[in-house]
Amino acid sequence: MARRKIGLWIIGAKGGVATSVTVGLVALRKGLAGNFGLVTQLPLFANLDLAQWPDFVLGGHEIRQTTLHDAAMLLASNNHALDSDLIAKCKPDLDRIDKNTRDGTLFNVGHRIEEFATGDLIKRAGKESPRAAIERIQTDLKEFVKDNKLDQLIVVNLASTEPPVDEAAIPTKWKDLARLLDKPKKCSLGASSLYAIATLELGYPFINFTPSLGSAPAAICELAIEKDTCHMGHDGKTGETLMKSVLAPMFAARNLQVMSWVGHNIFGNMDGKVLDDPANKKTKVRSKDRLLHQILGYSPQTLVTIEYIESLGDWKTAWDHIHFRGFLGTPMTLQFTWQGCDSLLAAPLVIDLVRLTECAHRQGERGLLTFLASFFKSPLGISENDFVRQFQMLEAWVKKVS
Amino acid sequence: MARRKIGLWIIGAKGGVATSVTVGLVALRKGLAGNFGLVTQLPLFANLDLAQWPDFVLGGHEIRQTTLHDAAMLLASNNHALDSDLIAKCKPDLDRIDKNTRDGTLFNVGHRIEEFATGDLIKRAGKESPRAAIERIQTDLKEFVKDNKLDQLIVVNLASTEPPVDEAAIPTKWKDLARLLDKPKKCSLGASSLYAIATLELGYPFINFTPSLGSAPAAICELAIEKDTCHMGHDGKTGETLMKSVLAPMFAARNLQVMSWVGHNIFGNMDGKVLDDPANKKTKVRSKDRLLHQILGYSPQTLVTIEYIESLGDWKTAWDHIHFRGFLGTPMTLQFTWQGCDSLLAAPLVIDLVRLTECAHRQGERGLLTFLASFFKSPLGISENDFVRQFQMLEAWVKKVS
Amino acid sequence: MARRKIGLWIIGAKGGVATSVTVGLVALRKGLAGNFGLVTQLPLFANLDLAQWPDFVLGGHEIRQTTLHDAAMLLASNNHALDSDLIAKCKPDLDRIDKNTRDGTLFNVGHRIEEFATGDLIKRAGKESPRAAIERIQTDLKEFVKDNKLDQLIVVNLASTEPPVDEAAIPTKWKDLARLLDKPKKCSLGASSLYAIATLELGYPFINFTPSLGSAPAAICELAIEKDTCHMGHDGKTGETLMKSVLAPMFAARNLQVMSWVGHNIFGNMDGKVLDDPANKKTKVRSKDRLLHQILGYSPQTLVTIEYIESLGDWKTAWDHIHFRGFLGTPMTLQFTWQGCDSLLAAPLVIDLVRLTECAHRQGERGLLTFLASFFKSPLGISENDFVRQFQMLEAWVKKVS
Amino acid sequence: MARRKIGLWIIGAKGGVATSVTVGLVALRKGLAGNFGLVTQLPLFANLDLAQWPDFVLGGHEIRQTTLHDAAMLLASNNHALDSDLIAKCKPDLDRIDKNTRDGTLFNVGHRIEEFATGDLIKRAGKESPRAAIERIQTDLKEFVKDNKLDQLIVVNLASTEPPVDEAAIPTKWKDLARLLDKPKKCSLGASSLYAIATLELGYPFINFTPSLGSAPAAICELAIEKDTCHMGHDGKTGETLMKSVLAPMFAARNLQVMSWVGHNIFGNMDGKVLDDPANKKTKVRSKDRLLHQILGYSPQTLVTIEYIESLGDWKTAWDHIHFRGFLGTPMTLQFTWQGCDSLLAAPLVIDLVRLTECAHRQGERGLLTFLASFFKSPLGISENDFVRQFQMLEAWVKKVS
Repeated sequence: MARRKIGLWIIGAKGGVATSVTVGLVALRKGLAGNFGLVTQLPLFANLDLAQWPDFVLGGHEIRQTTLHDAAMLLASNNHALDSDLIAKCKPDLDRIDKNTRDGTLFNVGHRIEEFATGDLIKRAGKESPRAAIERIQTDLKEFVKDNKLDQLIVVNLASTEPPVDEAAIPTKWKDLARLLDKPKKCSLGASSLYAIATLELGYPFINFTPSLGSAPAAICELAIEKDTCHMGHDGKTGETLMKSVLAPMFAARNLQVMSWVGHNIFGNMDGKVLDDPANKKTKVRSKDRLLHQILGYSPQTLVTIEYIESLGDWKTAWDHIHFRGFLGTPMTLQFTWQGCDSLLAAPLVIDLVRLTECAHRQGERGLLTFLASFFKSPLGISENDFVRQFQMLEAWVKKVS
Repeated sequence: MARRKIGLWIIGAKGGVATSVTVGLVALRKGLAGNFGLVTQLPLFANLDLAQWPDFVLGGHEIRQTTLHDAAMLLASNNHALDSDLIAKCKPDLDRIDKNTRDGTLFNVGHRIEEFATGDLIKRAGKESPRAAIERIQTDLKEFVKDNKLDQLIVVNLASTEPPVDEAAIPTKWKDLARLLDKPKKCSLGASSLYAIATLELGYPFINFTPSLGSAPAAICELAIEKDTCHMGHDGKTGETLMKSVLAPMFAARNLQVMSWVGHNIFGNMDGKVLDDPANKKTKVRSKDRLLHQILGYSPQTLVTIEYIESLGDWKTAWDHIHFRGFLGTPMTLQFTWQGCDSLLAAPLVIDLVRLTECAHRQGERGLLTFLASFFKSPLGISENDFVRQFQMLEAWVKKVS
Repeated sequence: MARRKIGLWIIGAKGGVATSVTVGLVALRKGLAGNFGLVTQLPLFANLDLAQWPDFVLGGHEIRQTTLHDAAMLLASNNHALDSDLIAKCKPDLDRIDKNTRDGTLFNVGHRIEEFATGDLIKRAGKESPRAAIERIQTDLKEFVKDNKLDQLIVVNLASTEPPVDEAAIPTKWKDLARLLDKPKKCSLGASSLYAIATLELGYPFINFTPSLGSAPAAICELAIEKDTCHMGHDGKTGETLMKSVLAPMFAARNLQVMSWVGHNIFGNMDGKVLDDPANKKTKVRSKDRLLHQILGYSPQTLVTIEYIESLGDWKTAWDHIHFRGFLGTPMTLQFTWQGCDSLLAAPLVIDLVRLTECAHRQGERGLLTFLASFFKSPLGISENDFVRQFQMLEAWVKKVS
Repeated sequence: MARRKIGLWIIGAKGGVATSVTVGLVALRKGLAGNFGLVTQLPLFANLDLAQWPDFVLGGHEIRQTTLHDAAMLLASNNHALDSDLIAKCKPDLDRIDKNTRDGTLFNVGHRIEEFATGDLIKRAGKESPRAAIERIQTDLKEFVKDNKLDQLIVVNLASTEPPVDEAAIPTKWKDLARLLDKPKKCSLGASSLYAIATLELGYPFINFTPSLGSAPAAICELAIEKDTCHMGHDGKTGETLMKSVLAPMFAARNLQVMSWVGHNIFGNMDGKVLDDPANKKTKVRSKDRLLHQILGYSPQTLVTIEYIESLGDWKTAWDHIHFRGFLGTPMTLQFTWQGCDSLLAAPLVIDLVRLTECAHRQGERGLLTFLASFFKSPLGISENDFVRQFQMLEAWVKKVS
């Protein structure tokens, strides 16, 4: 039987995570990579008809001028994240995928991200209305689908974190929001939301793996339903927050009172440079911090920092200090240090999300895919933050559709 | 309505955990302690008719000569675990409970534990057959019930860890095992199992909070059913192993391959002195190590040490180093340091277990109480080691009987 | 032979460190404390004629309304730093010392510190010129000397950290600076410098144990020489920075290139509340950060945070992450966690400094006591930051005067 | 002016450290490596006439069958220690150096090391007397010197750790020890001492970088003097013990009482496999543990473990927990985690030692080179273990001979 052809379109196509996703999919297709880190390769998913490695066609939007090969070599040399031998074997494929890259939009991405962009993009940035940007994005997506004879297209946002948006100012009805898209000065949405709108209007699924707003506004959720498609977000849960979502339930279940939870994160990749700007950092810290209250039922003193330390490259190191009160009020301490390669923690989850989203759309799921909560720091449409209970939602869905 | 009177009989009545349980219950009764660490004080259990603090009458077996007050002051001065002001306020109660202590048995407890015993006990040890020891224990229990007009009696083993027993040599039928009780040389059971038999034969519930064998043998499980009572074990899950049972499921769910898991434990309480003997330590390390294979489905290289460092007193410090493989085979690391006061982590769980066991027996539960799995490092009769799933079994039971 | 009577006058007399110094000296006098943490009790100092515990008479300036006993009990209850039994035994002495407390000055201490002060002090604050404050302080000191028939007086600044001062704006000649003391608006000195001037003008030695400016300005150094007395500062080296000053020389001596050094400090005492104000924090962070460049000869990327986490009380916890490059450029990592009780690390060093300063003054030392460098994060008048080499300067001085 | 030609002969020529030394020297010669980790490249040594990278000719003894290229690739692939691109560039040189390898001796190396040896070596092992082994080694050394027209030869022992030797049984006079060399059964010396004797008898310097006995016996020291040559040892100070030798002096200088010092080491290289044998491990642990008593002047409780964890490869990870008592007896804690690549920490020190030893011999130094103490865990002939003071001995020597 002929396989379906699935387009994977990445916003921020040559960033660290996107490059790892791309190298990873090429390596998987060539049999050069194992299943480590891929949730959908667990036995649980064996009976689900998920897209296979050769089914994927890759493309994306980007605002910087670079090649996937150069981006990959940067992860290899600076960051010791990818293996240069593996990259060499994947080079012809990476060069081919490079051709599927189109110019992204800089609308409301904030000063720090704009600095990475090159001349043409910046010139255009001032002139293009949100609606014009959306239409340009849609043209790119439609061409990609047509040129590659795709059966489905999944768009994933992996671009750098945008500054926070005043969510209260966004209309809750799609028809009201749609009207603002022609008025650049009144439209407070960031680029991530424009990509979401462009995708969902065409009826394709959208995944927001970043802390940026993306498809979160109610008006955009309404659009997704209207266009009979699905979406989910936001902010991939890869390291320190994953730890929080398994440890906090333990403290709760044992009635050990968390007095304070301090988390210091240091890392040195491109994402770190963007977060070095206080505006962009605010979006991220908020996302890392919110789950404790929801799991514990009270609010311990918390502190989350995330700082750019160049020498660490892609190696995110987190130190968490949890101060808790046991029987008879005695204070005790748990500390952990997490040393993970950020792009390689994120990349397989992106691949998992794409496979599950493609399958879910085929199975008729529409609107927010809340059963994907375990993949996100701040899952949309659901307040469960306990990792194991989130994972059980995924298990239940798999059982339902298998 | 008149409350039930519940006897709590502790084997190892003046050890660190037992002393903390006793001081804790007295403090709770006097309103001097909060709910920290007490699982059964979570809202989940609000509709369960659990025993209240004033319902408990305490007593126990012990092999050392000391008072509860002295044992408590040791925890205060050497270990900074209990507060000396609190102990002073509880002293009259502790002195009264002291009178309910009876001589334990040294049968097969191993050389190290024997060293703690005093003259009379040692003299008797050589002469008493297992059956005679059981009958003596039963006399103590019956007197305690009668003298205090108890409605129920729960026996909890908190005594020091015994050396490993050759489990294969124990008959699987109760009638065969019963016969061996008259033949000291052929009976390889340790003291913990004699206490279990003594308790269950009288129809009372038995909880084994230690790694010793206790009521685990099939023949003793048969006895419990026959006598229409219930029991559970073994080895309370308080610190490092609790962490393993929440972190290992995370690695499994994310398909991150654990290559090695090293856990070094250091502490300086009485329990630590006993574990300083390689025979006794073997029982403990085995219990701490087994769950990883069951959760992960494969066996990473593991190393567990537990060493006596006098200056730490009751403050168990564990350093765990988990080396795992992520996407594209990249090795990453998680380390944690747990600094907990061992007796104060264990004590509230013992109180929880006693309350839940008393309630369960009233509700008609018989045999192994597998829904209590979340409290144990090596839960009997069940292979689930994922902490959250174990806790869900407890939730399900609570819902059933509420 | 009759002993000398030595006055120890503490600025910030009821803060955490001052209270620990006071309780400590009382306990030492009563034989209730050992030598732990006291450098001057090492055999090296045995032949030096140092002041003995009964020789000291205590007093000081303070801006808050509290008693030493209350301050001590706060360290006992909130912070688990002092022992309540010990405090009870010292209470009569603490009450007596309380009577030697006088009102401090709020001149340029910054908004955050002002909040701790009470009515009278605040009212006076607006009216008093620097010169008037100095004269008031001097009256207090002279009365203390006279009333207690003191042979010598040592003034130590232990008050909360002040905001940074524009050091460039301070005249370098004493006569120019002296003139500014009558012009409150032109005088950018903080309270710590007024205390220094008041002390040195009277010919008494002054020690600045805090990061505030104190006696550091050249003009004040000139004053000390002129008045034939001695002084030293600043910022006691108690924990994380002490570690830096022993570890950085190791990396330097092994030619291991430190790429980045991140230090996160969390603690919850009064000092922490003051540092929670960004202005005051800046002074502290600068002091903690400067020595790396001086020891290594180059400037790795550094990050120092110091945050107020209430639950920690006086227990300063520092996590340092040092990323360094070894042979063939391979990156390696050293992490440490320091869990120390801040007041109890500082207090014995204060006692050491007072004993050594009193002895040095008697031996004819004048101006900056650079041989005390090992006690300070930012030793005045000397650029050596390697702890062992600093300690050798102390050893050399001891040998010289013994 | 013509340079001197310096032979560097390595015992254990294809082990991890030796391979890193060899790749490193080739890379330095080709300008492919920087100065990181090389002590002798510090400005301090600029005026010393040290051997330059092109001056070295390499060879050595080995008991396993492998090539330097294969050994290097193992460090690259399994251990992420060396870079495969660098190895590729060095391959022709490595292949040439391979030809300078000769068969080592298995005399008293212990069972675990014997297992690595191949057929011929094992067959010979049973027949060869110590004296015969020495003469065979000397033939190899003389041929190497002659064939390469060397001006000097330095022999360095980098072979796996041997089991402990009963040092009391070794005669203290060289003439008595020499007599035993013909009596295999009476000679308790290990291979490391035979290499030392072989080298020193020929008048060449010998460096023992391992914990094995080597040239430590008084009789062998006598031989060195007699033959007008120099030597030093033992056990290179690379990681955890280096940390101890800078941290312990800090505790001592601050009069902070170390109550316990626990050090757990895990790693997975060949050296780790050898130490997995309890006999060999004993030699190592003893070497890591002895310095604390000497620095502190008292003996805290100590625990040192060193365990083979395969997944870590060459990445030695050490967790140290130091429990100390501060002012008023308050217990405090310092923990550190050291994550270093063992071979790459050791290799530059070996190169430093060879350069310094060659220079010292030229300068007329004879017997034990105690000024090299800072390089060793257990420096021979000297009891100073404080790293900074050891380093000052090196500085003093450099100043003397510059």
